Amino acid sequence: MILLGIDPGLGTTGWGLIRAEGNRLSHIANGRLKTDTAAPLPRRLAHLDAMLAALMADHAPQAAACEEVFVNSNPQSTLKLGQARGVVLCALARGGLEVGEYAARLVKKAVVGTGAAEKAQVHAMVARLLPGVKIDGADAADALAVAICHAHHLASRRVTG
Amino acid sequence: MILLGIDPGLGTTGWGLIRAEGNRLSHIANGRLKTDTAAPLPRRLAHLDAMLAALMADHAPQAAACEEVFVNSNPQSTLKLGQARGVVLCALARGGLEVGEYAARLVKKAVVGTGAAEKAQVHAMVARLLPGVKIDGADAADALAVAICHAHHLASRRVTG
Repeated sequence: MILLGIDPGLGTTGWGLIRAEGNRLSHIANGRLKTDTAAPLPRRLAHLDAMLAALMADHAPQAAACEEVFVNSNPQSTLKLGQARGVVLCALARGGLEVGEYAARLVKKAVVGTGAAEKAQVHAMVARLLPGVKIDGADAADALAVAICHAHHLASRRVTG
Repeated sequence: MILLGIDPGLGTTGWGLIRAEGNRLSHIANGRLKTDTAAPLPRRLAHLDAMLAALMADHAPQAAACEEVFVNSNPQSTLKLGQARGVVLCALARGGLEVGEYAARLVKKAVVGTGAAEKAQVHAMVARLLPGVKIDGADAADALAVAICHAHHLASRRVTG
């Protein structure tokens, strides 16, 4: 099963694709989708949408996951992130994917074993869980982490359900 | 020229279509796009996106406008609205439309003549400016108001530019 994890953002959206076979995880690809900060907002969002559609067409993921948003104390940042996140969730659903949503704490717990883990620990553990991975920056690392969290969740659902 | 005004929301998005011929405005249609509160967020956003695409296909607007968001003191509400607004702006841009964005104050000024107007005044003035209009609730009235504001803005641009 191919899983797509996404860490949404207006300027930079991180993405990570992993393969889950039983309990074995392997890395497929990861990267960043960037929009032009000089372009008008609607065009930036449409560009993000088009890049996501191309990513799904290229890799045909069967499931997707996204981190729940930590609502910022800066309402303008929350609004900006919300707009990008809305486009991401919409694109995934339009692509026929169900989208798992996980709080950051749950993602950390799934990857490191504790919800209080530091970012650097999460990234180091992502690299260890996906041998040979070359991670394209922090946003892609977060995206891979949420994909790993989703894989664990789906595996435990298969066992318990 | 056919103008589409949008008042975005996750539960209810208001829309209004007007025709602008020189300084003459006339009403085409207005309404509300509703999403199922019981459905998962990504599906609600994809449904909103599909309804907007159908609206554009039916009426072929040549320009669009959206109210700028008033960032709420409740960050969860801001996030929710941001997600819906992101999908709306993206859908309009994907449909090839440039999107005018106006602060609520500017919309009120364009419609009533003062940025401090009450909602009820705005709605009454929308009804007066578009003879024969039957307005489908407050969200549609706001959408018609932003379309009127955009028509004024485009007309003054034609004169000055």
